[in-house]
Amino acid sequence: MRRVDLNADLGESFGVYTLGDDAALLRVVTSANVACGFHAGDPSTMARAVGLAAASGVALGAHPGLPDLAGFGRRRLDITPAEVRDLVTYQIGALAGFAAREEQTVQHVKPHGALYALAEENPAVAAAIAQAVREWDGTLIVFGQSGGGLVAAGNALGLQTASEVFADRAYSPDGSLVPRSLPNAVLHDPEIVAARMAHWARTGTLLAADGTTALTLTADTICLHGDSPGASALAGRVRSVLEAEGVSVQSVKQSVKQEVRKP
Amino acid sequence: MRRVDLNADLGESFGVYTLGDDAALLRVVTSANVACGFHAGDPSTMARAVGLAAASGVALGAHPGLPDLAGFGRRRLDITPAEVRDLVTYQIGALAGFAAREEQTVQHVKPHGALYALAEENPAVAAAIAQAVREWDGTLIVFGQSGGGLVAAGNALGLQTASEVFADRAYSPDGSLVPRSLPNAVLHDPEIVAARMAHWARTGTLLAADGTTALTLTADTICLHGDSPGASALAGRVRSVLEAEGVSVQSVKQSVKQEVRKP
Amino acid sequence: MRRVDLNADLGESFGVYTLGDDAALLRVVTSANVACGFHAGDPSTMARAVGLAAASGVALGAHPGLPDLAGFGRRRLDITPAEVRDLVTYQIGALAGFAAREEQTVQHVKPHGALYALAEENPAVAAAIAQAVREWDGTLIVFGQSGGGLVAAGNALGLQTASEVFADRAYSPDGSLVPRSLPNAVLHDPEIVAARMAHWARTGTLLAADGTTALTLTADTICLHGDSPGASALAGRVRSVLEAEGVSVQSVKQSVKQEVRKP
Amino acid sequence: MRRVDLNADLGESFGVYTLGDDAALLRVVTSANVACGFHAGDPSTMARAVGLAAASGVALGAHPGLPDLAGFGRRRLDITPAEVRDLVTYQIGALAGFAAREEQTVQHVKPHGALYALAEENPAVAAAIAQAVREWDGTLIVFGQSGGGLVAAGNALGLQTASEVFADRAYSPDGSLVPRSLPNAVLHDPEIVAARMAHWARTGTLLAADGTTALTLTADTICLHGDSPGASALAGRVRSVLEAEGVSVQSVKQSVKQEVRKP
Repeated sequence: MRRVDLNADLGESFGVYTLGDDAALLRVVTSANVACGFHAGDPSTMARAVGLAAASGVALGAHPGLPDLAGFGRRRLDITPAEVRDLVTYQIGALAGFAAREEQTVQHVKPHGALYALAEENPAVAAAIAQAVREWDGTLIVFGQSGGGLVAAGNALGLQTASEVFADRAYSPDGSLVPRSLPNAVLHDPEIVAARMAHWARTGTLLAADGTTALTLTADTICLHGDSPGASALAGRVRSVLEAEGVSVQSVKQSVKQEVRKP
Repeated sequence: MRRVDLNADLGESFGVYTLGDDAALLRVVTSANVACGFHAGDPSTMARAVGLAAASGVALGAHPGLPDLAGFGRRRLDITPAEVRDLVTYQIGALAGFAAREEQTVQHVKPHGALYALAEENPAVAAAIAQAVREWDGTLIVFGQSGGGLVAAGNALGLQTASEVFADRAYSPDGSLVPRSLPNAVLHDPEIVAARMAHWARTGTLLAADGTTALTLTADTICLHGDSPGASALAGRVRSVLEAEGVSVQSVKQSVKQEVRKP
Repeated sequence: MRRVDLNADLGESFGVYTLGDDAALLRVVTSANVACGFHAGDPSTMARAVGLAAASGVALGAHPGLPDLAGFGRRRLDITPAEVRDLVTYQIGALAGFAAREEQTVQHVKPHGALYALAEENPAVAAAIAQAVREWDGTLIVFGQSGGGLVAAGNALGLQTASEVFADRAYSPDGSLVPRSLPNAVLHDPEIVAARMAHWARTGTLLAADGTTALTLTADTICLHGDSPGASALAGRVRSVLEAEGVSVQSVKQSVKQEVRKP
Repeated sequence: MRRVDLNADLGESFGVYTLGDDAALLRVVTSANVACGFHAGDPSTMARAVGLAAASGVALGAHPGLPDLAGFGRRRLDITPAEVRDLVTYQIGALAGFAAREEQTVQHVKPHGALYALAEENPAVAAAIAQAVREWDGTLIVFGQSGGGLVAAGNALGLQTASEVFADRAYSPDGSLVPRSLPNAVLHDPEIVAARMAHWARTGTLLAADGTTALTLTADTICLHGDSPGASALAGRVRSVLEAEGVSVQSVKQSVKQEVRKP
C-alpha cells in the first residue's frame, strides 16, 4: 500500500498578528513545519503551535528561515554557508525546547521560503543545512524538493530524507517548479489541485505546465498551504482524494518505523 | 577542601560588534554564560563562543535575556510569567544546538540583566524560569543570587541550584545587592575586589557596604565580568587569590560529580 | 457649534501580517495615528497608510511606540526620558518622510500603548515627548488623555494640544481610565458606546463606571478603534450619533484654523 | 582653486556596542554619513552622532541601509525598488528629526554597503533611491560612485549629485571598484593611500590596479573610513596631503554655495 505524508507550515503568527488557521490544518496534515522566530513566529507562538500539534498527534518539524521578519523570509539574502549552518542550528534547537516541553521530539527539518530556494539552487547552502541537521541529531529527516539538491545533500551525509511535492505549484517539464514570477505558477483552483493529486495517486506522475510532459515524481510528503482563505479546506480535500485512491496518509516517521518493522 | 565555580558572561558580541574578551575570560572561569540572541549574541557569535568554551573545557550555560538588543537586556520589560517561560525555553534550546555541535551538554541556566532582576524580585517570574529549565532537562543547574528567589524557585521544583556571589558588587546589610543607581554599587578597584574574595575564602563572609555587618554568603559560584577594560585581568587575579587561599576552582558540574562519588 | 475630531490608529500591519481595516476607518475618522515601525508598521506599510489617508483627506499623526514589535508596544519598558525623547524624534521624522511624499504635513503626535501610559503616569516621560515634538516642529499638536499629564506637558512647552476621550473605555469617578486588567474596562456593546457618545454630545459629560458620577470631560478628539471585528462599523455609528446631535466632526487642524479666522 | 569634500560614516554604534571613533573623524571630514537604524545605529546613537557633527560644523547626510543589523547591511537582500524607495524615505526622515533638533538640515544621502552596491548595479534601485530623495527634499545631494549609476539616476531626476572616489579602494582599469572578494581590493598601507591622493590632487587621475591605466576620476567627495584601528589617523593624513597639494577641503554644500555666488 502506498503511503504519503502531508506537511504544512504552522506557527507563522507573530505577536498580535495572526496568520493561517493552525487548528484547521492540524486536522488534515501529518507533519507540521513550525516557524522558529526568524521569518515568523515568536517563543509564545511556537509554544502554542507545538502544543496544538502535539495534542493532534502531528509530527513536529523545524522550519528555519532567513532573519527577515519584515519580508517573511521570502527575500533572498546573500548569506554564507557558514552563516546558514549557524542559523539552522539555532532554530532547530529553539524548536526542540518546545518539543521537549510536550515530551515530543523533532521529526524533520524543512527550510522556509528563500532559504529553501537557496538550498535548492546552491549545493553549499544545502550542505550547510544538512550539516546542521546531522550535528543536532542524525536521526532527523531532511525535507527537500523531489529530485533536488537538499535531498541530495542530506543523503550525502547519511541522513534520512523525504522528497516533497507541492500540491498547488506548477512544474516545468524538467521537474523544477515554475517560478512564482510567472503566471500560473501557483494553482488556485481546488478542482485542478484535487484532480492532480488524484492523478498522482493513480500514476505516480504529474503533468508539467506544458500540458504534455508526464513527470514521474517521488513524493514522500506533499506540501499543503494554510495561509490563504480556503486553504485549509483545500488541504482537507487533497487528503480525502488521496485516501479515496487508496493512499495511506501518515507521517514520514511512522512510515520509517513500519519499514523497519518489515521482515 | 572548599570548592567554587567562577562564571562569566560570554558570546555577547553581535554581528560586526565586539564586546568582551571571550578568549581571556575562558582562561580564568570554569562556567560560561552564553548569550542566546535576545539581549546579545547571534547564531554565528554563539557558534564561536561555544566552540571556544568547549575547546577550553569550560562548562556551558544558557544566558537567556529579555528581547531588547538595543538595551542589552538591561531594561525591565513588563512581561508575563508565561512569556518568560516561553522565551527561556526558546533560548535554552537555541544554545543546546551549538552545544550538541561541540558534543557538549548545557550545564546551567543563568538569566541575564533585567530578567535576572525580575526573577529575584518576582516569585512568579522565578518559577517560570525554573519551570522552563525543568521542562527542557531536569538535570540543568539554575544559577541565582545567593539567598534569593531564583535559587528558591529552582529548589522548589527539585532542580539543582548554584548560589551566586558577585565579586565586584557591594552588598547591603540585608544581603541584597546595592542597587546600581547608588554610588559604589560596583567595585572597580582590583585591590578591593581581590581582598574581599580572599576574605570570603578565609571566613565565608563578606563585609556589607555599611562597613560593619559581616554577611555569611553561600557561594557555589562567583560571578566575574569581562566587558570592561581590565576586567579579564581582574578575573584572573580573583582566581589566583582564591587558589592561594586553598579554594579549588572548578565547575559546578564537576563539584556535583565529586560529591556524588563520595562514599 | 460644537466641533470634535475623531482619531484612530492606522498602518498597524507589518510585512505580510494585516491588522485593522484602514480603508474603512478612513471613511469615518478625521485624524489618523500612523504606526512608525517600532510597535507596528514598516516602511512600506507606512507608505500605503499615509497614501490612503492623504487620498481620504484625513489628517496625519505620528503614533510612536516602544521598540517591542513582539509585544505590539503594549508592555511597559523601563526606559529613560532621554531614550523616549530620542525614539519619538526618530519616529516623527520617519513619518514626516511619507507625509512629504504625499505633499502633506504631520498634524499631530499621539504615543501608542505603553508609551502613552508611561507618559500619563510619569511627568518626565511626558516632558520628553513634548520636547521631541517641539524640537521637530513647534506647530505639531500633542494628543493626550483629557485632564492628563501629556496634555499638561505639551501646554507647558507652549505646544498646541488636543484632549482625548475614549469612546469605548470606562472611566473611574476620578476621571482616569478603568485599568484594562479590570472587568468592563473596555465597552464592547455598540448600543452602550453610541448612547454614551450621544450623552456626551448633549451634556459634555460621561457617566463614570460607578454609575452615578457625571464626569465633565473636555474632548477635542475622540479615540475610536479599528483592530477588532465590527470596530469600524462601530466607529461609523459613533460619527453618525455625534452628527445627529449637531456636533461637527472635523480634524483638530481644521478647528484650529477656523478659530484663528474668527474675528 | 580645486575643492573637495571628505566624507565618512558616523553613528554606526548600536546600544552598548561601540564602532568607530566618531569624534576623531569629525576633526577630519566635512560631511558625515549618519547610520539610520537599519544596518547600524539606534535613536540615541543617532542623537549623539548628529549632536557631535553639528558641534563640529560637519555637514549631515543620511546613510540608509538594508534592514540587516546582524549583517551590518553588507549582505545583498533581494528587495524590490518599491521597498527600497520606502526604506530610504523612512531613514532620511528619521535622520531629519535629529538634524532639526540641532537646527541643522540634511545635506546629502549616501546609501550604505549592499544598498550602495545594489544601486550601482541596478538602475531601478538607483532610480528608487533618487525618487525617495526628491520626494523628501529636492535640494538634497545624492552621493554615488564617480561615473556610476546612482549619480546618473540623481542627475536624471534633476537632483544635485556628488561623485565619490574611495581613498582606500583599488580600481579596475574600467573605473569600477575591484571587488572586495579579490586580494588587494582594499589598500591598508597609509603610505600608498596618501601617495595616491597626492597623485590625484596633482593630476586628477588614479592608477588602476593593473599599474598602467591612468583613470581620470571626477571627485566631488572622497570617502574615508573610520571603523578600523588607525583609520582616523589615516583620514587625517589624507586631508593633510590634499591641503599640501593646494586642494581646499570643504563640504559639498559649501562648494555649491560658492559656485552660486560666482558672477
